[in-house]
Amino acid sequence: MQPIKVYADRRSQPSRAVIIFCRVNQIDFEEVTVDLFKAQHFTPEFKKINPMGQVPTIVDGRFKLFESHAILRYLASVFPGVADHWYPADLFTRAKIESVLDWHHSNLRRGAATLVQHTALAPFFGLTPSPEAAKQAEKLLMRSLRRIETVWLKGDAKFLLGCPQPSIADLSLVCEIMQLEILGDDIRDRFLGAHEKILIWIDNVKKATSPHFEEAHELLFQVKARMQSKAAAAAPNQGSEPKITSKL
Amino acid sequence: MQPIKVYADRRSQPSRAVIIFCRVNQIDFEEVTVDLFKAQHFTPEFKKINPMGQVPTIVDGRFKLFESHAILRYLASVFPGVADHWYPADLFTRAKIESVLDWHHSNLRRGAATLVQHTALAPFFGLTPSPEAAKQAEKLLMRSLRRIETVWLKGDAKFLLGCPQPSIADLSLVCEIMQLEILGDDIRDRFLGAHEKILIWIDNVKKATSPHFEEAHELLFQVKARMQSKAAAAAPNQGSEPKITSKL
Repeated sequence: MQPIKVYADRRSQPSRAVIIFCRVNQIDFEEVTVDLFKAQHFTPEFKKINPMGQVPTIVDGRFKLFESHAILRYLASVFPGVADHWYPADLFTRAKIESVLDWHHSNLRRGAATLVQHTALAPFFGLTPSPEAAKQAEKLLMRSLRRIETVWLKGDAKFLLGCPQPSIADLSLVCEIMQLEILGDDIRDRFLGAHEKILIWIDNVKKATSPHFEEAHELLFQVKARMQSKAAAAAPNQGSEPKITSKL
Repeated sequence: MQPIKVYADRRSQPSRAVIIFCRVNQIDFEEVTVDLFKAQHFTPEFKKINPMGQVPTIVDGRFKLFESHAILRYLASVFPGVADHWYPADLFTRAKIESVLDWHHSNLRRGAATLVQHTALAPFFGLTPSPEAAKQAEKLLMRSLRRIETVWLKGDAKFLLGCPQPSIADLSLVCEIMQLEILGDDIRDRFLGAHEKILIWIDNVKKATSPHFEEAHELLFQVKARMQSKAAAAAPNQGSEPKITSKL
C-alpha cells in the first residue's frame, strides 16, 4: 500500500501531533515539509491540496484531509493497527475524548497559540504584535491550564479523563503546551510551574510516545535556541526572552 | 427510557443546534434553561453538571457531556433513529465532516461569536467591548464566510461538502451564522449580502429542520427586537443598531 503523505511544519504543534501519532502507530507516511516561515502554505500548489492553507494536511490516495483532530480520528479509524485507547470504540469514552478535543480549540489552543503568535513568533510572520491580544491570551491560557488540572487530571491517573493509556486528546493538548518552550524557560515556568499534575502528565505522554515525541520536537528546541541567541545578541542587558506583556 | 436533560440557553448558538437536532430526530429530552444573562452557568449547582460552566450540556442517565459538537456526535451515535446523513458511518464522509467541525472553532465561531460579544452583547455581560478585538473578529468572520462559500458550497449541492442532506456540521455552522441577527439587519446584510450561496444554504438548513429551526430561534429574534427598541429609545437620531467598529 502507498504511504500517506503528511504535509507538515514541525514548528506547528498540530503537525507534530500527527507525526508522532503516525510514528507511534507505525503508519507508513512520507513527510512533506511546508515551511510556514517561508509562507509555503499560501502557494498555489499547496492551496490545491488544502484550500485553507493550513498544516497539517494529509493525502491518502485520492483522499485529502486537513484539521489535525479530524486527521487523528481518521488515522485511528482506518488503520487497523492503531490500539483502541487512542480513539476508543466505546461511545461513552469516545464522547468524553471528543469533548476535550472540542474544548481545546477555544481554550488551551486559543490561549497558547495566540500568546506565542503575539510575542515570540510575530517578527517571523511580519505581524504587528498586539499587547492587548497577548494579555487576553495569557489569561485564557492560565485558566485553561487550571481547568485541565482540576477537571481532567483528577486523582492519580496518568492521562486525561482518568485513562491508563493516552488518547489523541492527550497528544494534541500536550503538543500545544510544548509550544510554550519558545517563550523561554522562565515564561514557560511561570505558566507551568504551579501545575504539578500537568508537568507529570506531559512527562507521561512523552514516555508513552518516546522516542518519537522527542524526535518530533527537536526542531522546536532548535528554534528556541536560535531565538534565545538572537535576543541575547540584540539586547545583552535585557535578558534573552521574548517580551511578554505582563507578569503572571 | 428516561428523557435526556439538555441544559441550554436558546440565545446561545450551540444550544440551539442541540435543541433542533433533538427535535428533528425525535430524541426525547427535557430542556433545562440556564440563563446566561443571569450568570446561571457559574452557579455551584451548574458547575456540578459542567465544571467548565458552559451550555449546552447534556445528562443522559449518569452520563454528563458538554461541548456541542461532542454532544451532536454522541446523540447521532447512540440514538438508532437518527438518519445516517447527520453523522455518516462512512469513514471518508465522516472525516470530511469532522474537518468542517474542527475548522469551525477557530474560524467562523471565533469570528462571529467574538464580534457579537464585543458589540451587541458586551453590555449584557458587563464586558468592556474592545474595538480591536471586534475589528479582528470582523476580518476573521468575513474570511470564514468566503471560505465556506468557495470551499464547501461549490456547485449546486444543497448542503456542505456537496451533500444532498444536512449533517451536524451544517446545523452547527448555520446556527452560528444566525447569531449575526442580533447585530441588526444592516450589519447582518453587510456580512451575508454578498454571499448568495450561503443565504441559499441557510434556507436549505431551515427547510430541512422546519418548524424546529424557527421555533428554536424565536427567542433570538425577540432579543433582537428588544435590543433594537432599546437602542432606538436611547439614541433616536443615531440609528437602532449596535455599534460596530468599522465599515465592512
